[in-house]
Amino acid sequence: MSFEGKIIKCRAAVAWEAGKPLSVEEIEVAPPKAGEVRLKVVATGICHTDVYTLSGQDAEGRFPCILGHEGGCIVESVGEGVTSVNPGDHVIPLYTPECRQCKFCKSGKTNLCQMIRETQGRGVMPDGTTRFSSKGRDIYHYMGTSTFSEYTVVSEISCAKVDPRAGLDRLCLLGCGIPTGWGAVNYTAKVEEGAIVAVFGCGAIGLSVIQGAVAAKASKIIAIDINPSKFGMAMKFGATDFINPKDFGDRPIQQVIVDHFDGGVDYSFECSGGNVDVMRAALECCHKGWGKSIVISVAASGQEVRTRPFMLVTGRVWMGSAFGGVKGRTQIPDFVKMYLDGSLNIDDYVTHEFKLSDINKGLEAMHSTSCIRPIIHLTQE
Amino acid sequence: MSFEGKIIKCRAAVAWEAGKPLSVEEIEVAPPKAGEVRLKVVATGICHTDVYTLSGQDAEGRFPCILGHEGGCIVESVGEGVTSVNPGDHVIPLYTPECRQCKFCKSGKTNLCQMIRETQGRGVMPDGTTRFSSKGRDIYHYMGTSTFSEYTVVSEISCAKVDPRAGLDRLCLLGCGIPTGWGAVNYTAKVEEGAIVAVFGCGAIGLSVIQGAVAAKASKIIAIDINPSKFGMAMKFGATDFINPKDFGDRPIQQVIVDHFDGGVDYSFECSGGNVDVMRAALECCHKGWGKSIVISVAASGQEVRTRPFMLVTGRVWMGSAFGGVKGRTQIPDFVKMYLDGSLNIDDYVTHEFKLSDINKGLEAMHSTSCIRPIIHLTQE
Repeated sequence: MSFEGKIIKCRAAVAWEAGKPLSVEEIEVAPPKAGEVRLKVVATGICHTDVYTLSGQDAEGRFPCILGHEGGCIVESVGEGVTSVNPGDHVIPLYTPECRQCKFCKSGKTNLCQMIRETQGRGVMPDGTTRFSSKGRDIYHYMGTSTFSEYTVVSEISCAKVDPRAGLDRLCLLGCGIPTGWGAVNYTAKVEEGAIVAVFGCGAIGLSVIQGAVAAKASKIIAIDINPSKFGMAMKFGATDFINPKDFGDRPIQQVIVDHFDGGVDYSFECSGGNVDVMRAALECCHKGWGKSIVISVAASGQEVRTRPFMLVTGRVWMGSAFGGVKGRTQIPDFVKMYLDGSLNIDDYVTHEFKLSDINKGLEAMHSTSCIRPIIHLTQE
Repeated sequence: MSFEGKIIKCRAAVAWEAGKPLSVEEIEVAPPKAGEVRLKVVATGICHTDVYTLSGQDAEGRFPCILGHEGGCIVESVGEGVTSVNPGDHVIPLYTPECRQCKFCKSGKTNLCQMIRETQGRGVMPDGTTRFSSKGRDIYHYMGTSTFSEYTVVSEISCAKVDPRAGLDRLCLLGCGIPTGWGAVNYTAKVEEGAIVAVFGCGAIGLSVIQGAVAAKASKIIAIDINPSKFGMAMKFGATDFINPKDFGDRPIQQVIVDHFDGGVDYSFECSGGNVDVMRAALECCHKGWGKSIVISVAASGQEVRTRPFMLVTGRVWMGSAFGGVKGRTQIPDFVKMYLDGSLNIDDYVTHEFKLSDINKGLEAMHSTSCIRPIIHLTQE
């Protein structure tokens, strides 16, 4: 039976308040309005940003809400005027949409589409209202995606249509972690063949930086982590050198790298999960004259990065990357192609799998060092 | 008579110790060794870096020394193996040399030749000795140039040969200030036609940024200074908008600029003389998604720049520029061409002129707001 135009009752993991476990329960999902799409969520990853927002530290976090931004989905129905996707299409919801009309999209210089930024930041759809409710109470959206639900509603400009031959329980990781790291290398930094690359942090983003650096034909890929158990996977993904800062006592790790690698690296990527001291080390291990450092993590609000300006004046470049500089609707299909032809590894990220009813176990797993990504299967129970 | 191969006795302004006035007295200048060139200094500018080092705050400053790094010179004699310049050639000494052989020169990514960096930083010639002495005591070189002397010795790789038709009492400003600002726009930032540019500080460097932005066909050039008396000259050089941060009370100037210029500027240049708060404002007034900020000033040692990493993650780029990214031997001749064809203004920088015996008046003039550059004429008395 079709639910087109009707409210769908389904299960979702609701974050009623900060610092509390998610509550899996029945909610109501209203039909998509004009320019919106209702999606059946097949699977979702859990990212540290979800955990961070649930903790209550995210100044933009608004409760109650439905978290989740790494979804693999099928279009259930579309609202008025939607032309780019149809019911049955496989899509990845985008927390960085691509309207192709705003000043940002038209600039050719950034992927940071701002068309719906303001309402997305407030946890509502572009008309200022929510499509989720439970027990008569509105539930906010999150990052324009809210994939911790069997059904969600997103903007049409937030839907990347992908090849249906690839499994959505793997493709869901194209919603954040993998493009974020891979794109930072190839779209933001534009690493060239033969370059020496340092990766600070070997979680899902760091591994994706490593994959991206392999694709860019970097000559050396230095994996840096204070947890050496991460190095096995880093090596599998293509890292060539491994540094545990704890092995060098009080010696600043940037100095170790500058000394070991003939003046420093050509590119460094900070995937530490938001540690501003690591961001500094990543900049300062760059080679004088040309080294570029790309901040990828989101630091806690109020935190600041710092360095001596001499670092910049002598030729290092400090920049950042959000969603890897990837224009989602245009470029996520390319990632799917790479996955299907075997040149992009997604499967090895999946270290844990859970049903929706066990999603809190998935959140817990994020704290274990053996975890890269837990996947939540929304259609199994 | 020729002094080739002999010691020259001449006058120089010696900095015997930090924090004291310069002492104009007779010194001895040894002949150039292999790979070196002895220069007759016709005129020199005074830059804030000279004043800074004389103050004693420069950690690299070594006394006694002969300061000065904006010289207009004529080759007096050359050492063994020197082939690129001959006696009589007009040259601009370069504190950033260009050897064309080191890793940095060959990289194609930077102008920061490191061939003689280490000895230059210690105030000696590449063989570890000095060519200056007085009263039996060695006197150190400074920045590889030491232009506060009637004669100086520099490395061949530190000599930019220039068209002799242009007056050396104007060309001397091509030794630092003018290429530093102009080059930061056109070589470091690569400002494109139509861009909106902000310039923090309207001294000699800031005016050169303005000239560079005019050459790059920027659509708006915003001059920012807390001393509005600087705006007349900024307008003459091509600035289109003028902001005095003091007119906005406690409102952060970056917010003022973001609000007034549709989200911020495409490029900002920090020429404040080393104020790290201004460096921060310059970054944060940049447009989300693509704005680039270029640090040009040298901050006091120990000072740090800081910002929220979110500024970088959302697409702003923080970088720096030394000597404007200019490869001196290759590109300074181009600046001379621009001066001769009227497309580069040098004359208007010269607000004060002194004889060598009055050089301390020149240093004093640097503290007056009406001063852009004092020129010292070494051959007049």
